[in-house]
Amino acid sequence: MREAENAHQQEKEHEIRALQAQIDPHFLSNTLDTINWIARERSEQKISRMLTALSRILQYSISDGGSVTWRDEIQWLTNYVFLQQTRYESKLEVRYDIDPRILDLTTIHLLLQPFVENSIEHGFQPRQGEGIIVIRGTLEDGCVSMEISDNGCGMSEAKIDAIFSGRSKSNGRPEGIGIFNVHERIRLRYGPPFGVTVTPRREGGTLVRIFFPAIDEK
Amino acid sequence: MREAENAHQQEKEHEIRALQAQIDPHFLSNTLDTINWIARERSEQKISRMLTALSRILQYSISDGGSVTWRDEIQWLTNYVFLQQTRYESKLEVRYDIDPRILDLTTIHLLLQPFVENSIEHGFQPRQGEGIIVIRGTLEDGCVSMEISDNGCGMSEAKIDAIFSGRSKSNGRPEGIGIFNVHERIRLRYGPPFGVTVTPRREGGTLVRIFFPAIDEK
Repeated sequence: MREAENAHQQEKEHEIRALQAQIDPHFLSNTLDTINWIARERSEQKISRMLTALSRILQYSISDGGSVTWRDEIQWLTNYVFLQQTRYESKLEVRYDIDPRILDLTTIHLLLQPFVENSIEHGFQPRQGEGIIVIRGTLEDGCVSMEISDNGCGMSEAKIDAIFSGRSKSNGRPEGIGIFNVHERIRLRYGPPFGVTVTPRREGGTLVRIFFPAIDEK
Repeated sequence: MREAENAHQQEKEHEIRALQAQIDPHFLSNTLDTINWIARERSEQKISRMLTALSRILQYSISDGGSVTWRDEIQWLTNYVFLQQTRYESKLEVRYDIDPRILDLTTIHLLLQPFVENSIEHGFQPRQGEGIIVIRGTLEDGCVSMEISDNGCGMSEAKIDAIFSGRSKSNGRPEGIGIFNVHERIRLRYGPPFGVTVTPRREGGTLVRIFFPAIDEK
C-alpha cells in the first residue's frame, strides 16, 4: 500500500517535471522568428509586428533577469499591451505617466506582469465598455512608487486578503500567486516598507501600488 | 548568517515559481489565434499553416493528457516536424511506418517529444547533410514497440548511461531529463519489461525503442 502510494507520488512528480519541460521556449521563439521572416518577405507588416512583439515577450521571459531596469519592464508592458489590444480590438487603453528619472533604475524581472495580466484578464473580461489602465510612476525621497490602476470590475477586500495570505484559490488552483510572489520577493530583498499594496478604488476597479527603493546598479 | 541564507533560499524558490508562471500558455495560444485570423483574412496560407501547427502543439501541450492515443501523439509529431522542416528548410525528412492497429491504442501524453526533440536538436544541428528520422511502430503479443531511429551524430554509451541514471548534465543543467522521465513514467505504471532503451546505431545515429503495453481504454 505504502509502495503504491510512493509509486503514485513519484509518477506525479515526474508528470510535473515533464509538464514544465513541455513548451520549450527556445523552440517557440525560433518558430516565431521563422514565421516572422516569411511575413516580412511578404510585406505583411501587421502580422510581423505582432510576431515581433510576441517574440520579444518570450525572449524577455526566458532571459535570466539578472539586471533589469524599469525601462525593460515598460518595454515588456508595451509589447504585451499591444498584443492584448489587437485581441480585444482596441477596447483597452493604457496611459503612461512615468517620471523619466525612474526608467534607468533597477527593478525586478517581470515585476509588472501579474498586475497587468490581472487587470486585463480578470478586471475587464467580464465587463462591457472600454478598459482603461493607468501606469503612474513617481520618484520621491529615494523611493519609486509605481501605481497600476484600472476601471475593471475590481477585487473584494476578502479576495485581496486571501491573495496576500497565499491561500486564494479559483477552481482549486492557486490564484493571484504572481501578485503574492512579487510582494514576497520585494519584502525578502528590501524589507518593509517596500512591497505591494492592492486596494479597491472607490470609483470602481483596483489600485495596485508597488513601493520600491530607487537603486541604480549600473 | 543563517537568516540571510534562508532569505536567499526563499527568494530563489519564489523566483522559480515566478519562472514557471512566466509564459502563460493560454495567452500565447490566444495571441497565435489572433495572428492566425489576420493571416487568413489576408490569404497568407503558409503563415496560417505554420501558426495553426504551432497553436495545435501548444493546445496539446497544455491539455491535461488524461486519455491519449498513439494517433494524438503522431498528430503532435507531424505538426512539430512540419515546423522544424520549415525552420531547417526541408533538410529534415521523417518517414512513418506504423501498424495502423496501434493508432487507437492508449499511450502517455507527450511520450515522443523528448526523443524527436533530441534527434533534431542534438542529432542533426552539428551535422551537415540531410537528417532522416524513421518512426516504426509494430504490434506483437499485446505489446507496442515504437522505434525512433535517426542518422544524426549519435550519443556515446557513457552519455546514454548518464541519462538513464538521471545524472547527465550539460553546462550544469540536467540533460536528457525528458528521456529519463518517459522511461520512469512507463516503468512506474507498467513495470518491466516496459520502458525505453537507447542504443547507438552501428551505421551512425541513435535508435530509441519505446516498449509499451497494447492498451485500449476506450
